[in-house]
Formats: sequence, C-alpha cells, structure tokens
Amino acid sequence: MSGPPPRRVGPWTVLSERIVYDNPWISVVDHAVEHPNGAAGQYGVVRFKNVAVGVLPVDEEGCVWLVGQHRFPHDAYSWELPEGGGPHHESAIETARRELAEETGLTAERWLELAAFDISNSVTDEKAVCFLAWGLHPGEAAPEASEALSIRRIRFPALIEEVLGGQIRDSLTIVMALTAYAKALRGALPDAISDLVLKR
Amino acid sequence: MSGPPPRRVGPWTVLSERIVYDNPWISVVDHAVEHPNGAAGQYGVVRFKNVAVGVLPVDEEGCVWLVGQHRFPHDAYSWELPEGGGPHHESAIETARRELAEETGLTAERWLELAAFDISNSVTDEKAVCFLAWGLHPGEAAPEASEALSIRRIRFPALIEEVLGGQIRDSLTIVMALTAYAKALRGALPDAISDLVLKR
Repeated sequence: MSGPPPRRVGPWTVLSERIVYDNPWISVVDHAVEHPNGAAGQYGVVRFKNVAVGVLPVDEEGCVWLVGQHRFPHDAYSWELPEGGGPHHESAIETARRELAEETGLTAERWLELAAFDISNSVTDEKAVCFLAWGLHPGEAAPEASEALSIRRIRFPALIEEVLGGQIRDSLTIVMALTAYAKALRGALPDAISDLVLKR
Repeated sequence: MSGPPPRRVGPWTVLSERIVYDNPWISVVDHAVEHPNGAAGQYGVVRFKNVAVGVLPVDEEGCVWLVGQHRFPHDAYSWELPEGGGPHHESAIETARRELAEETGLTAERWLELAAFDISNSVTDEKAVCFLAWGLHPGEAAPEASEALSIRRIRFPALIEEVLGGQIRDSLTIVMALTAYAKALRGALPDAISDLVLKR
C-alpha cells in the first residue's frame, strides 16, 4: 500500500488519515497516529467549515440582547448572546454583523474585538471570534430556516448574574460576558462602554 | 422501509438517524430532520462519551498551575489549567481529582464546583464541569500515553492577564479563570480563596 508519507503534528506522527463523514458544516477525519510516547493509536478530529462568531450588543441603557433557542445537539433550550458561523474566507466582523442583524434586527455603529479562542480542543478544531457592538439601531430580524428564535433584553449586571448562577450554559456567551466584565473593571475598554456595562 | 417513528427534539422532527463514526471518545450521528419551519434537512451531531472536567488549583501563595501541551486538532501548543475527561457514570469531582493528580501530581484538600457549561452547542453535545481546588499537596505526575505535558506555576493575576491578552485560547481555562475572578470580586467564594486570587 502506498500513500503520502507520515507527517508530524506536534509530538504526534500521522501515519494515515481518511474522511469518515462530511456535511456542509463539518468533516470528521480519522487518523492513525503514533502518540508522543510512540504507542500506536487513533485520533478522530471534527473539522469545522465555519468560524463561530459571537456578539455582545450593548444599548444606551446598558442592556444587552439575548437570543433563546432550542439547541438540537443538547436537546435543551438555551439563552445566548447573538451567535453564528461564517466561512473561513469571510472576515469575522462581517459574519458578526450579518448574524446580529439576522437574529435581532440590530445594526451597530461601533465594533470592538473582545475575545478569540478555541471552543473545544480535544477532538474539534472549532474557533470563535467575539465582538462588542454598541451604537445600536433597531431593524427587522430574519432568522434562518433552522432557527426558531426568541429575543430578550436585560441589563448587563443581570447577564453576569445569570452566567455566574449557571442559568446560561453557552460557552461563547459566558466568555463574552465575563471578558467584558473583567476588561471593564481593569480599564481595558473604551470609557463609554465601561460606564454602560458597570453601571447599576 | 420501516424504522422507529419520527421523534421530536425541541422544534425539530427527527425522521431517521444513523451512526456514521464511532471511536472510544466520540460517536458521530447523522440525522434526517425537519427544521422548525418544516424544511427538510440534515443534522450531524458529535456525541461525546466523556464529560470534560477542569480544575483551577490555587496554592497558598495565590499561584495556579498550568499544563502545556500540543493540541492535535488545532495543531497548536496550548497552556491550560489541568483538564481531562471522565465517563458519564463517574462523578465529575472524581474525574477532576484523577486528572489533577495525573497531570500535575497535586492533591487538594478542598474542592468547590466553579462552573458547569456546554462547551459547544452547534454540532456537539460536549459538557464541562469545573472546580476550584485548594489546600494543595505536591506529588508525582503520571501523564497518559497520548500526553506530553509541561507544567508552569503563575500567580492568579498573571493568569487573568494571559486570558484577557489572548495568550490563553482554551475555553475551559478562560471560563474558570474569569468565573473565579468575577465570583471573588462579588464575594461569592470562600474568603480564604478570594483573598488568594485577588491579592496582588
């Protein structure tokens, strides 16, 4: 049997790989590997075709906008900041603008990158880029076929309470809320936004 | 063709499903669905066989312990709080004790649940449970074959700086660090721990 030569991924050696599943959102790739200690093994990786984006939209009264929806993989209802996915060739902020408008109807005058992180790193390569958005203007929401959404507007401190209390379980929402809170407290956000998110 | 009757998952109807990939860590299940608006569609879900656990170990000097490793799915080196996975039938704290000891050698006298969340919810059902651990005692690390680990000990405020600065990209680590910070600031942690994580 011939094939491409083994390749290195950090301390692993990949002996062979094959796509075992593919749909418009993910590919699943099974790898035959040598582990860092030389043992033979298998590594299944879920490759995402989209980058996840999240938006923390803050209005002039210090309120934020949450989207409620049933999440199919968890079979559970989830309240989250506006989120979505965009292809790797699209800029994250372009995806974020589109998702914010689709899910809430809102447009924003001001955007600031808030956090970029690896959502899960044991078997997926899913990445997230998250933004603060302010200077908000209302509009008409236009959710996708796969979405049945509700909208809720709450004050930022109430969002922090829901995050710390465990009522909000979505990782992007938790990271966005707590990052904005920590950055505001440490003077790492524009004053206009710090004042909005920290006022009680 | 006969099969099980359609079932409901929130606003979706699942017409059929089949396992398209399976290994010791995940199953990938492809579903034929009707979307909330009635349109026909496909939903691939990655089902995790383990619950992810994370540990924020804080020592008497207010330092925390980070584990460095190359993450195969992202092909990138990552500094993280101690993490691992355990079967659903095992208690999360038991998994956490084992992972902390395996990766760092540490044992802890005191444990407190810090956060529980859905790591990713668009196509996976991966869940995390995270703990604060203090009253630490050193021991001998014993990493698994698939792991080649480094250890780094830093002060908690330096961890917050690395999280907010984007040097740390792992979602569990970000959630643990910022949750501990926010809870300490709001008086929602035992005084002994708040004093340790907030002192400069």
